[in-house]
Amino acid sequence: MIHETIVTTAACDGRPHVAPMGARYEADRIILSPFRPSTTLDNIVTSRAAVLNFTTDVRVFAGCVTRCATDWPTVGASRVAGVRLAESLAHAELELDELRDDAERPVLLMKCVHRENHAPFAGFNRAQAAVVEGAILVSRLFMLPPDKIDREMAYLQIAIDKTAGENELTAWGWLVAAVARHRASLESSGGQAAAAAHP
Amino acid sequence: MIHETIVTTAACDGRPHVAPMGARYEADRIILSPFRPSTTLDNIVTSRAAVLNFTTDVRVFAGCVTRCATDWPTVGASRVAGVRLAESLAHAELELDELRDDAERPVLLMKCVHRENHAPFAGFNRAQAAVVEGAILVSRLFMLPPDKIDREMAYLQIAIDKTAGENELTAWGWLVAAVARHRASLESSGGQAAAAAHP
Repeated sequence: MIHETIVTTAACDGRPHVAPMGARYEADRIILSPFRPSTTLDNIVTSRAAVLNFTTDVRVFAGCVTRCATDWPTVGASRVAGVRLAESLAHAELELDELRDDAERPVLLMKCVHRENHAPFAGFNRAQAAVVEGAILVSRLFMLPPDKIDREMAYLQIAIDKTAGENELTAWGWLVAAVARHRASLESSGGQAAAAAHP
Repeated sequence: MIHETIVTTAACDGRPHVAPMGARYEADRIILSPFRPSTTLDNIVTSRAAVLNFTTDVRVFAGCVTRCATDWPTVGASRVAGVRLAESLAHAELELDELRDDAERPVLLMKCVHRENHAPFAGFNRAQAAVVEGAILVSRLFMLPPDKIDREMAYLQIAIDKTAGENELTAWGWLVAAVARHRASLESSGGQAAAAAHP
């Protein structure tokens, strides 16, 4: 089972890093497998720790994926050498148990050493789920065909229109803008390539 | 903003009723608007109370919508005349503040009088969101074109395959079976109609 979470880590100089990441639960270990290059990977290898933040503030997912907002407030973790999001519903503090290295996608097997519950879950919100799906699409813009992106964004837009609150609308706006920016950059580089071919 | 929740109510003889329902937050009131006929509506009008259960056990959503499993364990609410799910991450106890009656879809404006937080949120799970979307599709089978249902179920299946745990697989199985049952009943009544037309 994979949960979409926000992983927070700290560099050796204490600088916090916030990244959306899938976390897989396997027996008593939690598995993270970031693609290289990854600041999260570097920080975990150095500090041997990470925090899984369970938040329904989907602006954090969309903000990090689009680079529109990556500087989310953090505070020190309670037990491990790292940081957690200042605002979340709950968090789990993890220590590195085993590293299976790989040139492309190393596997980090983590053990949970501490958990805190901060605020109650308010129920499923379809717009939040749509932002999470949209953020995954945006993180794969470089490899997905444009018509697939358009079709899926249009489908997800329905849940946004029907059920979003302010945070979800902000997050969705960042995702829509990121798709548009990606298209514009493709067209502009395509135009440059065409101009170079036919000067 | 609309959250998809499980509403629990009790009849005047104490019999519990469990129903998935969207809850809209408007200022300090929570709005429920069940379509008639609705046991939830009848129970709220009688008891003037309801409980919103915030659970990520998507079997409750799929089980109720498909009628595969409707008998989820409840316990007495703490402050209102009603019941809550025995297992949930959190719940809110509501009292009826105002009823705007309607022949088709009355509007119940409720006030929250008590909240409890039972267990931490474990992060978004794409398969849970897919089950919630699938449950909404199944609740509208009678009005949706078959190709739309097939297309959306196929899209949702991707998140199930990639991220589901056991509960999500059980819930998804109930939804898939409900779609198949609906198709079979349409074909059988279509067959009967054809047989009646050409005896």
